[in-house]
Amino acid sequence: MKTIIVGFGFIGRDLVRVINEKRDIITKYDRNFKLVGVSNSKGYIYNEEGLDLEKLLKIKNLSEYGKNYKDNGSSLELIQKSNADLMVEATPTRIQDGEPGLSYIKKALNIGIHVVTSNKGPLVVAFQELSALAKKNNCEFLFEATVAGAVPIFSLVRECLQGDKVKRISGILNGTTNYILSKMYFEETSFELALKEAQERKISEKDPSYDVDGIDAACKLVILANALMDRNAKFEDVERLGIRGITQNAVSLAKKSKFAIKLVGTIDKKLEVAPKLVPINHPLCVHGTLNAVHVETDLANEITIIGYGAGKETVSAVFNDVLTVLKKAKTTA
Amino acid sequence: MKTIIVGFGFIGRDLVRVINEKRDIITKYDRNFKLVGVSNSKGYIYNEEGLDLEKLLKIKNLSEYGKNYKDNGSSLELIQKSNADLMVEATPTRIQDGEPGLSYIKKALNIGIHVVTSNKGPLVVAFQELSALAKKNNCEFLFEATVAGAVPIFSLVRECLQGDKVKRISGILNGTTNYILSKMYFEETSFELALKEAQERKISEKDPSYDVDGIDAACKLVILANALMDRNAKFEDVERLGIRGITQNAVSLAKKSKFAIKLVGTIDKKLEVAPKLVPINHPLCVHGTLNAVHVETDLANEITIIGYGAGKETVSAVFNDVLTVLKKAKTTA
Repeated sequence: MKTIIVGFGFIGRDLVRVINEKRDIITKYDRNFKLVGVSNSKGYIYNEEGLDLEKLLKIKNLSEYGKNYKDNGSSLELIQKSNADLMVEATPTRIQDGEPGLSYIKKALNIGIHVVTSNKGPLVVAFQELSALAKKNNCEFLFEATVAGAVPIFSLVRECLQGDKVKRISGILNGTTNYILSKMYFEETSFELALKEAQERKISEKDPSYDVDGIDAACKLVILANALMDRNAKFEDVERLGIRGITQNAVSLAKKSKFAIKLVGTIDKKLEVAPKLVPINHPLCVHGTLNAVHVETDLANEITIIGYGAGKETVSAVFNDVLTVLKKAKTTA
Repeated sequence: MKTIIVGFGFIGRDLVRVINEKRDIITKYDRNFKLVGVSNSKGYIYNEEGLDLEKLLKIKNLSEYGKNYKDNGSSLELIQKSNADLMVEATPTRIQDGEPGLSYIKKALNIGIHVVTSNKGPLVVAFQELSALAKKNNCEFLFEATVAGAVPIFSLVRECLQGDKVKRISGILNGTTNYILSKMYFEETSFELALKEAQERKISEKDPSYDVDGIDAACKLVILANALMDRNAKFEDVERLGIRGITQNAVSLAKKSKFAIKLVGTIDKKLEVAPKLVPINHPLCVHGTLNAVHVETDLANEITIIGYGAGKETVSAVFNDVLTVLKKAKTTA
């Protein structure tokens, strides 16, 4: 399977490292797996014989790769000319219009390329359209890394709970706010101080609104609702309240009654992101940068899955999606 | 796919109910799915055209089914004559020799019948032998319900974390002891009183040794080690200490320091079941009859999955295994 990676930031680079380290596992699913192209916003490298992964891991800019580099070559051009079987799309998220990832994913699916993405933007903007496009063109379209990082919530429901009907989902879906609220809970700091530390530790963006106003969590909730509960949800459908109004006093008061205040996303009759009192003994009550998703179904009743919602662990979700594509291609070959 | 159920207790009956209710999902994977036989220790019913599920759900003893009932007909005979494609084995667990399930599973795999089991016994006694037999005869051999009830730990690792290497597993694998320890933790009761209540509520067996001495948890640990970490573990390899020595005083002391005492199974260099201090904020620290499995891997780092370890939820694991067999048969057909 000829593969390209579009977007060569943290996740793209991590994926190349894992592909290089885990050759043996990849070969079990596909003897002919080759990474043939990598692009970012400045250009791309392409070699139909396969790229040199060791070399790729050493360079800082794609231009340093040498003769296979095309300066100003666009990702769309790479998608078109590579005739790849699989594209991993890992460009930065823009939730306003899903671009540039949305165009890349559409292009790939339209010409029959399987897609794995870690990018929330395109899914928030156009989940139904992309799913339909994938189905029409017999393409796999996987996006495990978009919600709760390394937590394999989509494959869990798709592959392990296929016979269960999901009735309700609640989740702690944003690691930054959970870090802040955990700090307020354990160390009794103010919201402002906890936020400042999150920013200093680069857990939060400089503009914290995306995290603390619940925008990121709301995006993830939209994707969960569409993918796991067959909703046709849009970002605007989410009732959203962030954690700026949460005082140290409120956190301490809750703690005395054995509750923690958490930013919880809920998919029930409505979609809601809001601070909630979570009993400290409830499985959903995880701390630090952990994420948790609590799924209520008709048969298993309640399943909770917990893991790291961002950072270096996220490559697990992307790599496992890649293997799933290889595995499905193999069994249907 | 022609299916038989061997063992018609709580789980077997629950499975028939779910098969009856979820026809639509089954049909998506296999239009020709039919339940053709059901057996217990007294006899079996068999109809190659398919059994009447509504009728089956109404009767108490198989003999009431009527003309398709064979009194004293053995399960082995049913397996042989039914020419089934899939057997669900749900006979009672005997961990000493794995019988009678072990013979049924061997018989089925030997003649090319896929097997789904909820029975720990055969797996504890003969994991490697049965796995090899299944592989040799191109049979699926799934056993999700044997460990942690409804928690889909095997399919999680097999289907969602296929690219991760499992380095360590720890788990709360026995609901009865967790119920007892939770009662001691929250209500400050003695071990004896908590055990008595567990027995009255039929959570524990009359002879509590299987639960409180860690035998059940050790069996599950052996299956986890063999299935998820490629070990060749036997029951005797597990260092085992139960919870009879845990006093209310010890539980209270731990609680003051924000720990709960839990019966934890660990697969690391060695296999061990023993009471451990678990920090109350750790994802593994679940209460009541919940089970939790904490998996440490090279990529995702830490994933914890939590759900009900026994009772009516277990049918989720069995039914999802059945669907997995149908799905795999479909894609390779």
